[in-house]
Amino acid sequence: MSLADLTAHEAAAAIRRGEFKSVDLVEAFLARIAEKDDAVQAWTHLDPSHALEQAARFDSARDAGLPSGALQGVPVGIKDIFDTRDLPTENGTVLDAGRQPTEDCTAVHLLRQAGAVIMGKTVSTELATYAPGKTRNPHNPDHTPGGSSSGSAAAVSAGMVPLAIGSQTAGSVIRPAAFCGVYGYKPTHGLISRHGVLVLSRILDHVGVFGRCVADVALIGEVLMNFDAQDRDMKPRARPPLVAVTAEEPPVTPQIAFVKPPGWDGAEEDTKSAFAELAGLLGDACDEVDLPEPFESALDWHGIIMHTDFAKNLAGYYERGKDELSDVLRGLIEEGQNILAVDYNRAVDWIEVLNAGLARVFERYDAILTPAALGEAPAGLAKTGDPIFCKLWTLCGTPAVTLPILEGANGLPIGAQLVGPRGDDARLLRTARWLVNRVADEGGNEG
Amino acid sequence: MSLADLTAHEAAAAIRRGEFKSVDLVEAFLARIAEKDDAVQAWTHLDPSHALEQAARFDSARDAGLPSGALQGVPVGIKDIFDTRDLPTENGTVLDAGRQPTEDCTAVHLLRQAGAVIMGKTVSTELATYAPGKTRNPHNPDHTPGGSSSGSAAAVSAGMVPLAIGSQTAGSVIRPAAFCGVYGYKPTHGLISRHGVLVLSRILDHVGVFGRCVADVALIGEVLMNFDAQDRDMKPRARPPLVAVTAEEPPVTPQIAFVKPPGWDGAEEDTKSAFAELAGLLGDACDEVDLPEPFESALDWHGIIMHTDFAKNLAGYYERGKDELSDVLRGLIEEGQNILAVDYNRAVDWIEVLNAGLARVFERYDAILTPAALGEAPAGLAKTGDPIFCKLWTLCGTPAVTLPILEGANGLPIGAQLVGPRGDDARLLRTARWLVNRVADEGGNEG
Repeated sequence: MSLADLTAHEAAAAIRRGEFKSVDLVEAFLARIAEKDDAVQAWTHLDPSHALEQAARFDSARDAGLPSGALQGVPVGIKDIFDTRDLPTENGTVLDAGRQPTEDCTAVHLLRQAGAVIMGKTVSTELATYAPGKTRNPHNPDHTPGGSSSGSAAAVSAGMVPLAIGSQTAGSVIRPAAFCGVYGYKPTHGLISRHGVLVLSRILDHVGVFGRCVADVALIGEVLMNFDAQDRDMKPRARPPLVAVTAEEPPVTPQIAFVKPPGWDGAEEDTKSAFAELAGLLGDACDEVDLPEPFESALDWHGIIMHTDFAKNLAGYYERGKDELSDVLRGLIEEGQNILAVDYNRAVDWIEVLNAGLARVFERYDAILTPAALGEAPAGLAKTGDPIFCKLWTLCGTPAVTLPILEGANGLPIGAQLVGPRGDDARLLRTARWLVNRVADEGGNEG
Repeated sequence: MSLADLTAHEAAAAIRRGEFKSVDLVEAFLARIAEKDDAVQAWTHLDPSHALEQAARFDSARDAGLPSGALQGVPVGIKDIFDTRDLPTENGTVLDAGRQPTEDCTAVHLLRQAGAVIMGKTVSTELATYAPGKTRNPHNPDHTPGGSSSGSAAAVSAGMVPLAIGSQTAGSVIRPAAFCGVYGYKPTHGLISRHGVLVLSRILDHVGVFGRCVADVALIGEVLMNFDAQDRDMKPRARPPLVAVTAEEPPVTPQIAFVKPPGWDGAEEDTKSAFAELAGLLGDACDEVDLPEPFESALDWHGIIMHTDFAKNLAGYYERGKDELSDVLRGLIEEGQNILAVDYNRAVDWIEVLNAGLARVFERYDAILTPAALGEAPAGLAKTGDPIFCKLWTLCGTPAVTLPILEGANGLPIGAQLVGPRGDDARLLRTARWLVNRVADEGGNEG
């Protein structure tokens, strides 16, 4: 077995114990990249010697007896919309070609503090929206990896890093994680600082993470959940004990609400049958629950907010180079330019109404089970697939995690998305780990 | 001397010590109301027997040895846009005639917890906007008391209550306080819960207070500053020690920045000369400081946000009775209905830019000194005067206090407004008390 097969928490623990060096680990992952990235194209900025220098510094610090971090010596991939002081940050657009930030964003700063090696920058779609980059799906290079965090999902999927970070404004973490068959976790809105990250929408933007198991996304999530007054949507609160709670067994069998989300009719047949089977497997632990009527309009409200916020936050790009934007993004910006403020603000007000509706579901159920996407990663590289089953949870700011526990008709992964109430991320991840184990026990395969 | 001449902190302390009863105090203020309110018309709902019942209950509780509150037995006037479970709340509009809430708003709940007697509801302009109610200026019944918290300011000015609460979305606390010659204090945005209060604009609405001295507005302000998750703009934080800090002497002489605000050219000549004199009196403790260019547009941004938020938040009134709204309010709502979301959101974004500009002033100066209004309360009762010198500070969410230490050409009061950085309310009130004492020392009259 290669060191590049270890999970992040195993690798960090082994490095802390002195079983091997961070340099050894990073070399194993660099070898994996050399082997696989010609086909996958997950990286946009990668400097092996710089990654090894960081690893060597962490090794020296450990050898000198300095305290080790939770991610000691572990390489992490960073979506190319997170500012890094030592690597360019080009935001997936030629309009930012060669852009070199002078400071790290808060998320990267926290990763370095925890001992992580910043492995490189992963491919983002154009400005973290819809127009694809060069990345291909590691399961089948003729299929999209999803977007907008295409490179982060694909890099973890191909085993090039054990962990990566991305962002979600519509479905940019959960969708590519599902398409690439990895674990993706989008925390409650406001739990991870977005300072130093490309801004699309203050209301909708979330930092999210990718990993090889639930415990790993809990580990990196907890590292990143540090109060930062520079993100005005964060409130001072204790860091949620994601790792400890995820490791616990649930005190009673979790109760799962299977929800057919707005747009369910468009789901592929294999998705529908996979979820029927999964719900059946859970038996008494799972009921089908209908969301009340206002949820039908949630996709419209999400669009009103997102397109309006594109129009304002991407105005600089639009003004200096609208001809270099994709047609799809230019169209959305122009749509957003004409939305009325009362409509925008009404859409924003619905967020709390929807969460009040969800609160009634979460009184009885630990989590909502719902598809991550319409089906498997679609064939073709011209589009990144539809984020339709992610938008509601992005709008609501609820925590969501996708689990690669299902498979479609073409043998590609299908993600099972679990959603919890805002702020209760730790319980959601505990429930997610329980579900993965339950499916593995029943199916006889490793979750 | 009547008990009705006591300040709130004196009266509460005397009641706690057993020197007189709350019933005695409330009777003294009711006598003052009986004497003066025919001319002033500050109250819209007043039930003397209900006020006396509350006082008797607080007296019994004290006699039974129960703990006394910071406002033990002290009567407070409540603007008629704050929900009260025992008195109607009609929001200054015939569209809410007879409206009886079933629950207290958070502010009233906190006042009752602190031992305050809810004396009655004071006149608000129409929906806390521009169309006046029946109230007259106690200094001259032919002049406006200002608005929208007209009754609260006039009731304190006429000595009918030692304290009152109001709200400010443009200039509805500072302006009427200045016109009526009382102390008015609008805290930092997000420090006092607005749950259960008429919503005009989540971004601009502030609860504010009126009193007879700086120590009294500090006292009631501190009572009201309790974290309430039902107001989504509050963040958990310790209650600011307003009373203790206000009572301190400043460790060094405060440095004051005299600012001529946007619209200064329209100020009346006696305002201009009064401020020149005041700045001169402060000597080395005061410099004139210019605000940079973007501040010139602050009034526009305030209007964009306020009118848009009127259009959404008053839509229910507009839809069920637009013909019963004043022309001015209907016009502003219709203006707001047509504002684009990008323009609204850009205006919102400027709030942080303006505060960054103010931060540079507050690096060198303890407070900004600036007029509360263009001049004295204008003659006539058809309008409530211009909030022009309040809007910037409402937009920025900075704490502001107006001090009745100046007088105009007609012998009516002129308010000196002091503004501090967001969150530093305690130091602002300490500086305000220092300024009042300094002026009293120099001028030989009591501040």
